[in-house]
Amino acid sequence: MEERIQLSVLVDIYGELLTEKQRDIMNLYYNDDLSLAEISELTSTSRQAVHDIIKRCHKLLVQYEEKLHLMETKLKMEKVKNSILNSIDLLNVSDDKSLKILLEMKKYIIDNV
Amino acid sequence: MEERIQLSVLVDIYGELLTEKQRDIMNLYYNDDLSLAEISELTSTSRQAVHDIIKRCHKLLVQYEEKLHLMETKLKMEKVKNSILNSIDLLNVSDDKSLKILLEMKKYIIDNV
Repeated sequence: MEERIQLSVLVDIYGELLTEKQRDIMNLYYNDDLSLAEISELTSTSRQAVHDIIKRCHKLLVQYEEKLHLMETKLKMEKVKNSILNSIDLLNVSDDKSLKILLEMKKYIIDNV
Repeated sequence: MEERIQLSVLVDIYGELLTEKQRDIMNLYYNDDLSLAEISELTSTSRQAVHDIIKRCHKLLVQYEEKLHLMETKLKMEKVKNSILNSIDLLNVSDDKSLKILLEMKKYIIDNV
C-alpha cells in the first residue's frame, strides 16, 4: 500500500488516540490532502508546528500499528470476507429454503464481517 | 461481563500499549490472580506502587476501549461467527462437491473469523 494511503487509513483507525488538534491536522493532511501552508492558516498554527505535529503523529500511528496490528487485521478480514462470499457462490443448492438462507447469509456477511 | 474478567480481556487486547512493567503487573493481577503483596514481592516494587500502577492502568485500559472498542468488536465478531456457522448448518446440500465446500468453509470460518 502506498505510504500516503496507508497513513490515511491509520488516521482513520487510531485517530481517537490522538488529541483533537493532532487528529484535525492529520486528517487535513492525509485525508483532505491540504498543504502545510493551508493547514497552518486553517488551524492558526505556525507552519513549523504543523510540520512537527505531522511528523510526531506519523511516528505515533506507525507505533500503534506495530503494537495492535488493526490495519493488518482489517485487510485480513477483507480477504476472509471475500473468500467466504466466493465459496458461497460455488455452492449448489436448489431448494427455496436453502437459497433464501444463502442470500441472507451473503447480506449478513457483507454487512457484518 | 464481570469487571475482573473484563479487565483481564482488556489487558490481553491493549497490553502492548502499556510499558513492560505495567503490563507484567496487570497480567499478574488480572490474569494470574495474584495479590498485591505477592506482586509486590515478585516485582520488587512497593505494595503502594503496585496499587497505584493497577489503578492507573485500569483507567488507561478502559479509556482505550472507549476510544477503539476492540473488546466490543471482538464480542460482536464471536456472535457473527456463530450466526454464520448456524446458518451453514441449516443449508440443505446433497452433492459431494457442495458438501466438501461447506465443510471447508466451516473450518475456514472457525480459524479466521
